[in-house]
Amino acid sequence: MIDFTQLFASLAGLMGIVMGLANIPQALKIYKRRSAKDVSLLTYSILSFGYFVLLLYSVLLHNIALIVINLFGFLGVGLVLSGIIRYEKKGVRHWGI
Amino acid sequence: MIDFTQLFASLAGLMGIVMGLANIPQALKIYKRRSAKDVSLLTYSILSFGYFVLLLYSVLLHNIALIVINLFGFLGVGLVLSGIIRYEKKGVRHWGI
Repeated sequence: MIDFTQLFASLAGLMGIVMGLANIPQALKIYKRRSAKDVSLLTYSILSFGYFVLLLYSVLLHNIALIVINLFGFLGVGLVLSGIIRYEKKGVRHWGI
Repeated sequence: MIDFTQLFASLAGLMGIVMGLANIPQALKIYKRRSAKDVSLLTYSILSFGYFVLLLYSVLLHNIALIVINLFGFLGVGLVLSGIIRYEKKGVRHWGI
């Protein structure tokens, strides 16, 4: 018999890794196009700060799995954020978001 | 005396909510500019699927706090994804990402 809760627990952990790595295509797109006009600076500033706090918490817990997940997430959103800051001047920014 | 682990546990929970809501400025930006050229379809497809799995897991656990966090996250990235699909034709997409 399949234990659904156990299955979903593993799946949820896997999603943590996959969702952190998901930022890489966004970063690649910005560096490839040399433009980040439509990407939100506010969104990626908040995400970078969030992953940084989660990374500190993982280190505090000495939980290697969480450290790896949040490190990949932090590096991914950090790359996107650097891309936005680097190519921001290429386009007109609206709303400040 | 401050209990750092307890403090960071609360802070990590708060980051879960904040990082879900962080997608809203990205969605607003796309709808305001009517353009999503620089935003990655692949990134937001993965994030939507990820939040959907996490939402199912939260429902399975009957954990209201997790349900709320992941529901906001799912709605946020879902809004961005709809924006990308809606305004995709406005610009040339590169790389398919």
